Amino acid sequence: MDTLPVSPLAPATTPDPAPVAGVRIATAMAGIKRADRRDVLLMAFDEGTTVGGVFTRSACASAPVEWNRARIGSGSGRALLVNSGNANAFTGQRGAEAAALSAQMAADALGVPVDEVFLASTGVIGEPLSAEKFAGVMDGLAASLSPAGWADAARAIMTTDTYPKVAERTGSTDGVPWRINGIAKGSGMIAPDMATMLCFVATDAAVPERELQQLIAAAADRSFNKITVDSDTSTSDSVIAFATGASGASVAADPAFADALDDLMLELAHLTVKDGEGATKFVAVTVTGATSDESAGRIARSIADSPLVKTAIAGEDANWGRIVMAVGKAGEPADRDQLAIWFGDIRVAVNGERDPDYSEAAAAAVMCEPHIAIRVDLGLGSGTDTIWTCDLTKQYVAINGDYRT
Amino acid sequence: MDTLPVSPLAPATTPDPAPVAGVRIATAMAGIKRADRRDVLLMAFDEGTTVGGVFTRSACASAPVEWNRARIGSGSGRALLVNSGNANAFTGQRGAEAAALSAQMAADALGVPVDEVFLASTGVIGEPLSAEKFAGVMDGLAASLSPAGWADAARAIMTTDTYPKVAERTGSTDGVPWRINGIAKGSGMIAPDMATMLCFVATDAAVPERELQQLIAAAADRSFNKITVDSDTSTSDSVIAFATGASGASVAADPAFADALDDLMLELAHLTVKDGEGATKFVAVTVTGATSDESAGRIARSIADSPLVKTAIAGEDANWGRIVMAVGKAGEPADRDQLAIWFGDIRVAVNGERDPDYSEAAAAAVMCEPHIAIRVDLGLGSGTDTIWTCDLTKQYVAINGDYRT
Repeated sequence: MDTLPVSPLAPATTPDPAPVAGVRIATAMAGIKRADRRDVLLMAFDEGTTVGGVFTRSACASAPVEWNRARIGSGSGRALLVNSGNANAFTGQRGAEAAALSAQMAADALGVPVDEVFLASTGVIGEPLSAEKFAGVMDGLAASLSPAGWADAARAIMTTDTYPKVAERTGSTDGVPWRINGIAKGSGMIAPDMATMLCFVATDAAVPERELQQLIAAAADRSFNKITVDSDTSTSDSVIAFATGASGASVAADPAFADALDDLMLELAHLTVKDGEGATKFVAVTVTGATSDESAGRIARSIADSPLVKTAIAGEDANWGRIVMAVGKAGEPADRDQLAIWFGDIRVAVNGERDPDYSEAAAAAVMCEPHIAIRVDLGLGSGTDTIWTCDLTKQYVAINGDYRT
Repeated sequence: MDTLPVSPLAPATTPDPAPVAGVRIATAMAGIKRADRRDVLLMAFDEGTTVGGVFTRSACASAPVEWNRARIGSGSGRALLVNSGNANAFTGQRGAEAAALSAQMAADALGVPVDEVFLASTGVIGEPLSAEKFAGVMDGLAASLSPAGWADAARAIMTTDTYPKVAERTGSTDGVPWRINGIAKGSGMIAPDMATMLCFVATDAAVPERELQQLIAAAADRSFNKITVDSDTSTSDSVIAFATGASGASVAADPAFADALDDLMLELAHLTVKDGEGATKFVAVTVTGATSDESAGRIARSIADSPLVKTAIAGEDANWGRIVMAVGKAGEPADRDQLAIWFGDIRVAVNGERDPDYSEAAAAAVMCEPHIAIRVDLGLGSGTDTIWTCDLTKQYVAINGDYRT
C-alpha cells in the first residue's frame, strides 16, 4: 500500500522531536509482511518508568492487547515492542504464544523482566504471526537503541497510513522542564472505543502509575474516542503512555502537564483523521443545545458516521437534509422544529426548516474548503460535544476493496 | 438520476399483478422535481377498507409520516396519495400545511373524508413541497382511476431506485380466494427502524383493523427491519397495508394469510436491498449460536453495516478478519476462541483462528457470486438471526456525492 498518494490533509512537515530522557528507540526490517520496509519498533525505558494504557473494548481483542491488559497497572514498563504488517488478532492460542515469545525475546535482549515488556501489532487480522521473525532482528535492535529517531518510530508502525503521525509538547513544573512525545498510526478501521488503533506517548516527567492511568484515560476520551473514519472499531486499539521521570519534574499536581498531554493526544487524533483512508476533507461535527453532553456526543457521532453525510461532503454538497436524517436516527432527544444547522458560519436551517436567508453559493464555498465545521443546535439544553471525521470517497472503497489480496 | 444503470441484481422481469378487488390506481406527472416523469400515485379504496401501518422512529420524521401517525388505527382508509421527488421532511409548519392541503385535494376529488386519506412523500429532504402542484393533476387522477396499473404505481414512487419493486401472493381461506399485492421503493438511506422507505400493500381479504396492524408490524419486523443498505434511517420510512375485504375472504384466523403477507414483504425487502445504491452483491449475514435472537441480530447488523466488510465484498475479497472485527465491535457477548465463520459453504475460521483446511480459492469463488451467504457461529447459545445487505462500491459514493445538486 506504499503507493497510496499522501493525504491532501497531511501536515506540510513531520516534526522530529528532541529525545525524551529515559527513552531509547530502534527500528528494523523483519520482513513480517514485506521484505523492504521497517516494520518493527523497539523502545526501551529506564528503570522506574511508570505505564498507563487504554485498549479496545472489542470482544475479539488481539493477542498483544490481552498481553498488555494482564500487565498494565502492576509495575513499571521497561520496553515496548511493536510490529506492523500483522495484527496478531484472531490467531488463537498460537497468537498468544507468539506474543509471549516475542516479549521474552525483547526481555532477554534488554535484560529486563518479561512482564515489563509491552506489545502492539497492527496489520492484517487472522494471519498467524511468526515470532521467529523477531529473532533475527532483536539483538540488532537492542544494540542500535538511541535517544533519537521518533519520526522513524512513527514510520515503522504505519500500515495504510500515508504519513507518519508525531507530536510533542514541553513545559515545566516547579521550574523543572519536562517533555512529552507521542506517535500514532491509524487510517482505516477507526472508530476507537476507549482508545485508538495505536498511540504511544512518552514523557520524562515523573508521574505515579495510578495518576498516569487516569491522565491517559481522560486524554483518550477527549481525543481518540472522539474521532471516526469509518465507524469500524479495531481489534488492536491501544494507547500506552510511559513516564520515565528522568527529567526530575514531578508533575502529579500540575494541571499544565495534563493540559499538554490532552493537547498532544488531540493533535495525534486529528492527524489520524486527516489520514483517514481516502480522506479529502477534515470535518468537525459539533452539537450544541442537547439535553446532555453524552446525548450531544451520540448525535454528533450519528452525523459523523453517516455514509450519506460523508459522501455528500466528498461531493462538496451542502446537503443539510442528510444532517437532519442523521440527527433523527440517533435515538436521542431532538425536536425537529427547534433544529438549526450551520456549515462553517453559514446557517442553512433554522426552526426546523430551510433558513430563508440562506445562500447556496456561500454554503457551497464552505464545502470546497479542506477543513469543514458542521454545527447543529438542538435548542433543548446546554449539552455539547464535538466529533471529528473525514469524508467517504471512492478512494476509501478502492483501498478497502483490495487491501488483503 | 434516471441515467443510473439498472442494478445487476435486478430481477429479470417486473410482474404486473392482477387487480386487488376494491382498489383503483392512477399515476400522473405533476412536475414535483422534474417535468418529464410520473411522480404522483393515487390509490382509492372501497368503503370498509381497514388500514395498518408502521413508520420511521426518526426524531425528525417527515410531515406525511406525522399525518399518517395521527390517523392510523382510528378508522378506515379510502385513499393513498404518494409523490416522489420531494420528501416533505424538515419543512416546518409549511410542510404540515402542504400535507394537509394535498390530503384535502384528494378527499375532495374522491368524495371521501380527509382523515381517511393517507400520504407519503419521498425525495429530497428540506425543500418545501408545493401542494399546488397536486392541484393541476388531482381531478385527472381521480378520473383515470383503474383496477390495473400496479407496476406503473411502483414506477411512480421511485427516486434513486433503478427498477420498480412489485410482489404478489394469492391464497384462499374457507374456499374464498384472496390476493395481496405490494409495491416498495428504496435504494439509499436504507436501515429501516420499524419500517422501510416506502412500502404499500393491498389485499382484498377482510382483516379487522387491529389484526391488520399486528400483521403488518410483525411482517415489517421480519422483512424491512432486517435489511440495511447504508445504516442510514430515513425520515420517511413507511409501510402501510390496506385490506378492502372485497373478496369476501375472512382471513383473521388463517395463518396462511399471515405467512403470505410475511413472504411478500420479505420479497419486497430483498428487492430493495438488491437495488441498494451502487450494489453489485446481495449478502445474507446469518449469526447462529448467540446468547439470544436479539444479540444475534445486533451482531449480524454490525457485520452488515460495517464499511470495511462491505468494501471487501465489493472487492470480492474473502476478508474474514473484518467479520471478526465487526463481531468484536458489536458490544454483544462473544468468545473469540469459539467463533467459526463461513462464506457460502466454505468454513474459513474455526475455534478463534483460521480454519487449517480452508481453501482460499474456494472462498474466492464464493465471493465472485452475485449472492453471498456469510455465516458466523458464536458457539454460545441458540440465538439466531439474519440481516440482508449489499456491498459498498465506488458507485455508492458517486451516486451520493452529487444527488442533490
